[in-house]
Amino acid sequence: MKQTGITAPEGFLAGGIACGIKKSGKPDLAVIYSEVPAVAAGVFTANQYKAAPIIVSMEQIKSKSCRAIISNAGNANCGTGKKGIEDAKLMVKTAAEVFNINSKQILVTSTGSIGKQLPMDKIVGGIKNLKATKDGGSDMAQAILTTDTRKKEIALDMGGYTIAGVAKGSGMIHPNMATMHCFITTDAKIEKSTLQKLLKKAVENSFNMITVDQCMSTNDCVFVLANGMSGVKPKENDFYTGLEKVCKYLAIEIARDGEGATQLIIVNVSGAKNEKEAKTAARAIAGSDLLKCAVYGKDYNLGRIYAAVGATSVKMDAGKIKADMKFGEKETIIICDLGAGYARAQAWGCDMTEGYVKINADYHT
Amino acid sequence: MKQTGITAPEGFLAGGIACGIKKSGKPDLAVIYSEVPAVAAGVFTANQYKAAPIIVSMEQIKSKSCRAIISNAGNANCGTGKKGIEDAKLMVKTAAEVFNINSKQILVTSTGSIGKQLPMDKIVGGIKNLKATKDGGSDMAQAILTTDTRKKEIALDMGGYTIAGVAKGSGMIHPNMATMHCFITTDAKIEKSTLQKLLKKAVENSFNMITVDQCMSTNDCVFVLANGMSGVKPKENDFYTGLEKVCKYLAIEIARDGEGATQLIIVNVSGAKNEKEAKTAARAIAGSDLLKCAVYGKDYNLGRIYAAVGATSVKMDAGKIKADMKFGEKETIIICDLGAGYARAQAWGCDMTEGYVKINADYHT
Repeated sequence: MKQTGITAPEGFLAGGIACGIKKSGKPDLAVIYSEVPAVAAGVFTANQYKAAPIIVSMEQIKSKSCRAIISNAGNANCGTGKKGIEDAKLMVKTAAEVFNINSKQILVTSTGSIGKQLPMDKIVGGIKNLKATKDGGSDMAQAILTTDTRKKEIALDMGGYTIAGVAKGSGMIHPNMATMHCFITTDAKIEKSTLQKLLKKAVENSFNMITVDQCMSTNDCVFVLANGMSGVKPKENDFYTGLEKVCKYLAIEIARDGEGATQLIIVNVSGAKNEKEAKTAARAIAGSDLLKCAVYGKDYNLGRIYAAVGATSVKMDAGKIKADMKFGEKETIIICDLGAGYARAQAWGCDMTEGYVKINADYHT
Repeated sequence: MKQTGITAPEGFLAGGIACGIKKSGKPDLAVIYSEVPAVAAGVFTANQYKAAPIIVSMEQIKSKSCRAIISNAGNANCGTGKKGIEDAKLMVKTAAEVFNINSKQILVTSTGSIGKQLPMDKIVGGIKNLKATKDGGSDMAQAILTTDTRKKEIALDMGGYTIAGVAKGSGMIHPNMATMHCFITTDAKIEKSTLQKLLKKAVENSFNMITVDQCMSTNDCVFVLANGMSGVKPKENDFYTGLEKVCKYLAIEIARDGEGATQLIIVNVSGAKNEKEAKTAARAIAGSDLLKCAVYGKDYNLGRIYAAVGATSVKMDAGKIKADMKFGEKETIIICDLGAGYARAQAWGCDMTEGYVKINADYHT
């Protein structure tokens, strides 16, 4: 049977289990494993207050090759000082022993609440029980979730090779040169430096164009592992097209599953002076609390679109700007032409509901 | 009897009536009137998408003297093109006739929903019925409200002269060199240029340090009228102290009355590299949707404070930063020391509740 998730590319295995970090008893520990060394690329949160696993992975990713990503949910290992760094390294060391690979070849991530030390006894025990299998992609996708209501997975057949991805993210979503947790695997043959360049560009057009609550996470990261096992060395452009497709799919799924959301918001900005300004305007519209409330209430309120753009430094012509809102059952399309040029951009967000407030008022308790 | 509101300074009269702009039938048309010419100072929204009355008042305020402010609620006269400008000018012209003053001496403002033409028949008729009296301050304060749940008024006895203020604002509150509607009167003798300088500084420390929803209004403005009728020419510093007190009081009342809010949030930032960075950090914390939800849920969640600061460019030391949250019955105090210097700042916001979502989902309907 053809694999559909993160293990669809050749040579990738995965797994996820519950090790007791989440009080709910839901899955909270995951692994992605490559049977052969892969080159790795990554982008990380621009938040200055970086979580310990991010600091460790920023170092680890410099290695020539990578074999595994180890990840937990339920606790972000952020704001945890030196102990946090030691714990992230212990997760790496334990995984190296269990999967019998060099500890330099392992990336590590955590997600969940900030400011508490990891329950390392549970995690170390959990890693020892983790199995990576060809059928484990779905369990893996489940085990990285926090307030998400559903898994986010994709596998793209590129004709001869495959690109697959898995992501989590639902709140604290306002990436900047980075994103929520997203792991991508491919069996294409590709150089590390090329992979890094293409990933950065794909992230700019996908994860960096979504927002749920304008709150930038401390634990964001996107990793790609390319193990070359298909034997196919794709053209750079073709590979980029596939990579961007995977990133956009997952980014939109994250926005659609925004905390408490009932509607995906698709913002189409045109008439901008240049692409950068188009992106800024699209993000500003997607991020406006007032607009998000209006979408929730199906309130045709163009003033909130104009006010959101006007509050930025983006060049707009107040006499020429035009906007529209189209309410669908599950998606709302916002159109805004700035009347100042010819550049376009798209951004994605979600409506703001009482559910968002409830989830985040009760997050700890 | 000593006056308590906007008419407390000598020579100021005011009034407010319902002229039918609001469907609810609540008061929606207001005037502040000075018996003698006053010097005027003003700051205006930095939003590029400025409402028509803002554009008109930015011109009018250049006059050497001012006698009246005419203001309506229920419709912002924003996004209304040339017709909007003509309507704002017609409001000025009608008020000039009714109050028998030079039309250059009148400031005009509007607040309410964006994108609809003003019902000028109702407004012109209303202005003809408007009376400015010494007892009309409270009616005036009432007639400028939109989603506010209560009036915001203050009068400060400065010993020999008085400074008084009135404000409205509850949503779309994230001022930048400007604020919601705020009108200040004083019978002090003061030069126009000095008044403008002091107002700008006072606004920076008061209205520009509050946020309800990070949404910058298209109609923000603060005006001060100083008619000199007390005969007192105060020392600049003394006058500034009183002016800042009035601005801070009204700014905090606006934050406290934020749409749907149950808690005023007071953010105290210390340990910043300089005052500008302290202010940026304080505003970022006060503006974080996630922090605001945490305050609503009385969830002791310092991670959201660190993440909010870390997402800015403000210099912070991730190893030294310290925060605390103190939940009171109606006020929550947030403390954050950045560990990077000695500067301090204070900002004010409010919690985010289901009520905020409801108000803004149903705003038009």
